[in-house]
Amino acid sequence: MMLSEGSSSLYRPGRPVHDVRRERNMVKRVAVLLAGCGVHDGTEINEASATLVHLSRAGAKVQMFAPNTDQMHVVNHCEGKPADGKRNVLQESARIARGEVKDLAELDVRAFDALIIPGGFGVAKNLCDWAVKGKDYAIQPQVERLIKAFHKAGKPQGMCCISPVLAAKALPGCEITVGQDKECEKWPFAGTAGVMKEMGCKHVNKNVGEAHVDVKNKLVTTSAFMCNGPVHEVFDGVGVMVSEVLKLA
Amino acid sequence: MMLSEGSSSLYRPGRPVHDVRRERNMVKRVAVLLAGCGVHDGTEINEASATLVHLSRAGAKVQMFAPNTDQMHVVNHCEGKPADGKRNVLQESARIARGEVKDLAELDVRAFDALIIPGGFGVAKNLCDWAVKGKDYAIQPQVERLIKAFHKAGKPQGMCCISPVLAAKALPGCEITVGQDKECEKWPFAGTAGVMKEMGCKHVNKNVGEAHVDVKNKLVTTSAFMCNGPVHEVFDGVGVMVSEVLKLA
Repeated sequence: MMLSEGSSSLYRPGRPVHDVRRERNMVKRVAVLLAGCGVHDGTEINEASATLVHLSRAGAKVQMFAPNTDQMHVVNHCEGKPADGKRNVLQESARIARGEVKDLAELDVRAFDALIIPGGFGVAKNLCDWAVKGKDYAIQPQVERLIKAFHKAGKPQGMCCISPVLAAKALPGCEITVGQDKECEKWPFAGTAGVMKEMGCKHVNKNVGEAHVDVKNKLVTTSAFMCNGPVHEVFDGVGVMVSEVLKLA
Repeated sequence: MMLSEGSSSLYRPGRPVHDVRRERNMVKRVAVLLAGCGVHDGTEINEASATLVHLSRAGAKVQMFAPNTDQMHVVNHCEGKPADGKRNVLQESARIARGEVKDLAELDVRAFDALIIPGGFGVAKNLCDWAVKGKDYAIQPQVERLIKAFHKAGKPQGMCCISPVLAAKALPGCEITVGQDKECEKWPFAGTAGVMKEMGCKHVNKNVGEAHVDVKNKLVTTSAFMCNGPVHEVFDGVGVMVSEVLKLA
């Protein structure tokens, strides 16, 4: 991962400077980080697609990335149980990206105005080990460097569903939402909020159609499928997240 | 697949009749047929998610189905080339459905008001053999019976992207759109329209944000990713298709 500063890849020899300036001013360049394909062992598909639809409508220029590593495991999504076999996170992410996904190792923070990380258990399995370790989890070093680099560069980040646990570790003391902090049928994973508070984060209760903006850290979070809600409300909540990220970019 | 007429599964013992009537009148029950997970060997993920979002917003009751068969093959979506291994269409579809998908063999036409089939090469590989045979293709018998049964029952069907080739075979002489009939960068698969015409269908040119309604056959089609267009326009076109299907239901 290239994190050093320098001339942007937008400046290509022979390209008129006014074109470059127009693109810099008008079009927000957004990196979207995927973690496989499917809620139980990868990126949650509807959250990823909602992210892409809202970014596309806003005229953002999107490049998807994923780590070129094996998934923690493969889950049979009919049964919700581990199955035999190995799958590669980058190759599976390419299913969501229609092939247009790059190895996370190639992500140059200078070439983007914002980062968005959709949710799904793949985030808690392939980008960190929250799914196995709970509150003693660690982030994949490549992902931790990435989040810190966007933060240091003053560039906004959007995360939904379980992805805010990445921010909680990489950006100590940040403000996030994972939805509500009281468990019920609608909020089956509300215990996550308590762990975030134990870690020193400020957790803000929000409904599924809302997002929380941590202005200081330029971090925008929304609960998405942390809520057992209808998919169009998840879609709308992701839309609010995308919109707030683009405002900060 | 149970295709005979009789009492609907909505009539459960002990359930007040007025509740059942209200549900029958108010809530449209829609079966969504999937063909795997990923554009190159399964259902196109964004088209499926768009279908679910629009149906959810309209208050429809959705049940997803997929055939419990092996995929024709598995494609590495980074390279767009076949890879080793076998995958089951039902299990892979469950990634889109978050586990809530049933074996197509259990689909009882009486229990639904409409059928929607999103696109992706999985339709042309796992639901019929268009991808291999071209104009000499055949539909999987289970899928052909399903489309004919919805048609015979006077229930609307929505299909997008390459899925209308299923209707072209099952419902001879029907009207469809697969987008435009002149190939260009924006319409790389426009040749499909010519084959549909050869088969005796009426092909209607439509843009990606539009749908065509064949009123007589209660068949609604939209081009989706037959167009090399931005994902939010595909999302909107699928929305028009869903809306027209629900109007006919």
